[in-house]
Amino acid sequence: MTTALIILAAGQGSRMNSDLPKVLHEVANAPLFAHALNAGASLEPEKTVLVVGHGGDLVEAAARKIDDTIVIAHQTEQLGTAHAVAQARAALAGFDGDALVLYGDTPFVTSQTLTNMIAARATHDVVVLGFDAADAGRYGRLVTSGETLERIVEYKDANDAERAITLCNSGVVCANAQTLFALIDAVGNDNASGEYYLTDIVELAWSAGKTATAVTCDEAETLGINTRVELARAEGIFQTAKRAEALDNGVTLTAPETVFFSLDTYVGRDAIIEPNVVFGPNVTVESTARIRAFSHLEGCHVSMGATVGPYARLRPGAELSNNAHVGNFVEIKNARIGEGTKVNHLTYIGDADIGDGTNVGAGTITCNYDGVFKHKTTIGRNAFIGSNTMLVAPVTVGDDAMTASGSVITSHVEDGALAIARAKQVNKAGLAIRLFEKLKSAKKNAQKGL
Amino acid sequence: MTTALIILAAGQGSRMNSDLPKVLHEVANAPLFAHALNAGASLEPEKTVLVVGHGGDLVEAAARKIDDTIVIAHQTEQLGTAHAVAQARAALAGFDGDALVLYGDTPFVTSQTLTNMIAARATHDVVVLGFDAADAGRYGRLVTSGETLERIVEYKDANDAERAITLCNSGVVCANAQTLFALIDAVGNDNASGEYYLTDIVELAWSAGKTATAVTCDEAETLGINTRVELARAEGIFQTAKRAEALDNGVTLTAPETVFFSLDTYVGRDAIIEPNVVFGPNVTVESTARIRAFSHLEGCHVSMGATVGPYARLRPGAELSNNAHVGNFVEIKNARIGEGTKVNHLTYIGDADIGDGTNVGAGTITCNYDGVFKHKTTIGRNAFIGSNTMLVAPVTVGDDAMTASGSVITSHVEDGALAIARAKQVNKAGLAIRLFEKLKSAKKNAQKGL
Amino acid sequence: MTTALIILAAGQGSRMNSDLPKVLHEVANAPLFAHALNAGASLEPEKTVLVVGHGGDLVEAAARKIDDTIVIAHQTEQLGTAHAVAQARAALAGFDGDALVLYGDTPFVTSQTLTNMIAARATHDVVVLGFDAADAGRYGRLVTSGETLERIVEYKDANDAERAITLCNSGVVCANAQTLFALIDAVGNDNASGEYYLTDIVELAWSAGKTATAVTCDEAETLGINTRVELARAEGIFQTAKRAEALDNGVTLTAPETVFFSLDTYVGRDAIIEPNVVFGPNVTVESTARIRAFSHLEGCHVSMGATVGPYARLRPGAELSNNAHVGNFVEIKNARIGEGTKVNHLTYIGDADIGDGTNVGAGTITCNYDGVFKHKTTIGRNAFIGSNTMLVAPVTVGDDAMTASGSVITSHVEDGALAIARAKQVNKAGLAIRLFEKLKSAKKNAQKGL
Repeated sequence: MTTALIILAAGQGSRMNSDLPKVLHEVANAPLFAHALNAGASLEPEKTVLVVGHGGDLVEAAARKIDDTIVIAHQTEQLGTAHAVAQARAALAGFDGDALVLYGDTPFVTSQTLTNMIAARATHDVVVLGFDAADAGRYGRLVTSGETLERIVEYKDANDAERAITLCNSGVVCANAQTLFALIDAVGNDNASGEYYLTDIVELAWSAGKTATAVTCDEAETLGINTRVELARAEGIFQTAKRAEALDNGVTLTAPETVFFSLDTYVGRDAIIEPNVVFGPNVTVESTARIRAFSHLEGCHVSMGATVGPYARLRPGAELSNNAHVGNFVEIKNARIGEGTKVNHLTYIGDADIGDGTNVGAGTITCNYDGVFKHKTTIGRNAFIGSNTMLVAPVTVGDDAMTASGSVITSHVEDGALAIARAKQVNKAGLAIRLFEKLKSAKKNAQKGL
Repeated sequence: MTTALIILAAGQGSRMNSDLPKVLHEVANAPLFAHALNAGASLEPEKTVLVVGHGGDLVEAAARKIDDTIVIAHQTEQLGTAHAVAQARAALAGFDGDALVLYGDTPFVTSQTLTNMIAARATHDVVVLGFDAADAGRYGRLVTSGETLERIVEYKDANDAERAITLCNSGVVCANAQTLFALIDAVGNDNASGEYYLTDIVELAWSAGKTATAVTCDEAETLGINTRVELARAEGIFQTAKRAEALDNGVTLTAPETVFFSLDTYVGRDAIIEPNVVFGPNVTVESTARIRAFSHLEGCHVSMGATVGPYARLRPGAELSNNAHVGNFVEIKNARIGEGTKVNHLTYIGDADIGDGTNVGAGTITCNYDGVFKHKTTIGRNAFIGSNTMLVAPVTVGDDAMTASGSVITSHVEDGALAIARAKQVNKAGLAIRLFEKLKSAKKNAQKGL
Repeated sequence: MTTALIILAAGQGSRMNSDLPKVLHEVANAPLFAHALNAGASLEPEKTVLVVGHGGDLVEAAARKIDDTIVIAHQTEQLGTAHAVAQARAALAGFDGDALVLYGDTPFVTSQTLTNMIAARATHDVVVLGFDAADAGRYGRLVTSGETLERIVEYKDANDAERAITLCNSGVVCANAQTLFALIDAVGNDNASGEYYLTDIVELAWSAGKTATAVTCDEAETLGINTRVELARAEGIFQTAKRAEALDNGVTLTAPETVFFSLDTYVGRDAIIEPNVVFGPNVTVESTARIRAFSHLEGCHVSMGATVGPYARLRPGAELSNNAHVGNFVEIKNARIGEGTKVNHLTYIGDADIGDGTNVGAGTITCNYDGVFKHKTTIGRNAFIGSNTMLVAPVTVGDDAMTASGSVITSHVEDGALAIARAKQVNKAGLAIRLFEKLKSAKKNAQKGL
């Protein structure tokens, strides 16, 4: 059976107190709606429809960056969840598989839960995701009888017996796409808020001779984000779970509570992560690598036995080979660092390829930008780049070559050659003392008001 | 009605285990007594008297830095709170407004609470600040009858009925200044510790035909600091509240628990603060700016759309214009960074003015200090400062000008000119290999003990 | 009475999910077994025997680094705790003092507890360490009668009355060495797991006419580490205790929860530690020093009044004299920084000695490595090292000497001399503009696909 995802992402989220549409706020360095996408991806959906409204252009642009096959449906007025789902109708015209309705502000529903819902479709027409609430409060209640979901009753319409039910409605729904749209056609808005509620489809299904059931998940999966406090809390929940997962996978985290992961961070067994490390998106750290304190990694790959930091920043495209060393106050961007190669101090390496066994001295800079274009620096194997070498790209330094400390390298250095670009040192005897005296006397005069 | 503040700040704080006077220990990057000052400032007091004792010179110097109109009164012996207040008498001679007695080690009393106390002076002669204690323990109790405060009874003198009272004494008091001093004259020290207690003035007021009442506040406002553990806890309480306030104001804090604010930090709506950011005193971050991880800001202003960090340090006088970029391992001090200007890597900019649209290359340093004086660097608009440029101040670089990478710039660069100060590169074929061989052979000999 | 330690460190720790032997995982920057060593060291043991098994070579190497007098005993098969202790027999042949059996995965047993155990040997032959368990669960129970320890009963063999006992077995045991080995000889392995249990020696002692007693400690001391989650929790327990100790000693910790100490960190009274500071092994910070945010210290000494950071990294051998300043993005390794000397920005000082009152400019680098050897840089008193000076070691700069910004210093600078190695600045009028135009036109052509 093929599946389609309908992700509702049209809300303004006014309680966020933000100009940004709610679903673009991030947890784990991914916008909220991407978490629903991510969970749904495991179903290998044939189509994904993102229903956008407030800030629709921004949401569309963000979605395109993640997956440009996503179909955008626009909900120009926000008239309720059923109305939102209805906007996906054109995009799913002729699609006869299951449609799964997810929410762009509900990031923690798991793939397993969605798989369970799809499985329940084998026996029922409409599948609703429920959860057993610790404090059911004002949630809608799922009225069930055995496997059967009879109806969803809003809290304000519920009688005492119904209010005693703790199985609550998450809003996540699955049904055959065309069945879903047909049921939605019948949903009315004759209620206090004048909105079209998706929850009405359960009763409408039974009226139409269809069946409904509930699948349940942990309440934590259904957490929706409405305020910045909830957003920060969701980030905390994600991090706690990801840290526990890392420990379980055999990663050493000295102080787990100080390490921040992204949704897609991968860290191998027996890697060591010291305190205060931040992982941006798209980072892979192999087994036995060591990420030292105060390091910041994004879009990079760290191979076995490599050491990073403290205070190292790896930016997108940084590729550290086995046993490479990147040390303090070093920034690496779009560059391969060869096996066993050391870049230990106060260095910027951007748009470069550095061979194995090379030593890059403190203060080295790849001058990769000319104000308009970026250029590449290539350094060979077993080279020795002297401290404070400026490598004015495009430029190449050969194998076993050397640059003298303080040199500006503008042209090719052949294998085994020493390149030097340096003025001769001259010592002027006694001049430092005379200069100091002059300055101090000027200061004294200044203080006297002369 | 005009108001005066009397802030008691004479205690040694021996439980702090410190040579520093207790009120100079800091919460939110401000000394403890400054918090009382800050709360009182909302009353626009005509006079503020700080009663100092232990480490009085240090406390006086710290107070002068905050507000040089503060009057310092010296309490040479510590004979009790009434005695401490009495030291303010000379400073308030002839002052006929209300005097509010605050404590330099009690940082969380709010402006609103103080306003409530002043308001209560309309109907009563003496106003005492009380709080409903969760665990009243050995606090003094406020014995009230309706709006009337009959007396304050110390725990050890209280009978069972009085000990059952949960309304406790904070020590904060408000009365007409001259009334206050007159009442204090009547306070005796005929008690176990031989001290003059300010609390005695309530009973003395009634004896003198005056009236007293209590105003209440949350117990958390009355937290006094006596140990370093309490100090750290107070810092935590401040930070928790300030983080919540920021979230509420529409600031994104990815990991609120890792962000440290100062008392006066301002962050605008839709600004993003990543994990591990420290705000020192006097920082303003405008709406939509982004402060990346591991950044440290003090005395600076970050305009809309600007990006700071990761690992950026903004020191006092750093002024980032709209959309400016300050990147990793960059320090900015006393310098304006123009609109859209980029200072992205490993750079020190001090005492400088940089125009709009300029790009400052990696490793650039403004050499602003000659050992005695600091000098200024001025860079124009749309300039391009090559990597590792030394700008020996005082020096100017014009609009649209360029400096070649690795140049030491000591004299003016005209608009549109390229300045270069660089030795020519020479490659010595095979020399690197010969040098390496020589070194390795020396090492081998050394290992052999030759 | 002389004492010997037998530390059992042979286990694989399969629940750690690691290739590293369990006892090499670290808490407080010291391998787990080193904590037991450390507690035992207060007894001034005549001999220490480390019983190793899984990863024995790695454990041995780690032990040698800490104390090369440790005797390694190999347990090639893991047949139970009694069998493990038996491996120490040869190492303690002829040793007639007390032997104390400790565990390499149980880091929190205190010196005081061990001293109590030794003291109890005065009256009893075998001393077992017990603890009153909050939740006794499946721990072995200590069956006592007054001062007498009758036997240790495993949970599964215990009757209801025995299971009601809350005094549990820690496994830590003390006895005369030869008595211990004699008792162990009698231990059998006729039990479900077929292992030789050390706990059996209590009943065997009574059978042999010897006596046994229990000494108790806090349950927290007996925490054993079996998983990475427990390891992280142990780190947290250590840090919490060490932070509390520092506060108690009169250290200011702005945000204690963000400061990470090592086992041997010493910080003096009235030192200030700002948020996010990491102390590696072997750091001493004297009274009144200030360690600013985001600093990282290992193997170094910071004297009174010195200031470190923010973002300073002190590596092994860094020695900061009184009132020295080490600022942001500065790395110091194996170097003395003189009294009042300033190294404030973006600098690498390695293998150096810098006199008092010297100013080291931004971007200075000691070029201490030639690819094979490390060399030393010596700088005198009251010198002024201009920004971006490269000091190509071995090299010396005299007292009151100066180097010009951007100079590469390769030979000695005499006292009071100014050394300069710099190319002359040339301004090429209009060239920047022409270069930009050329680049922009190239970009335009590239975009057109030309």
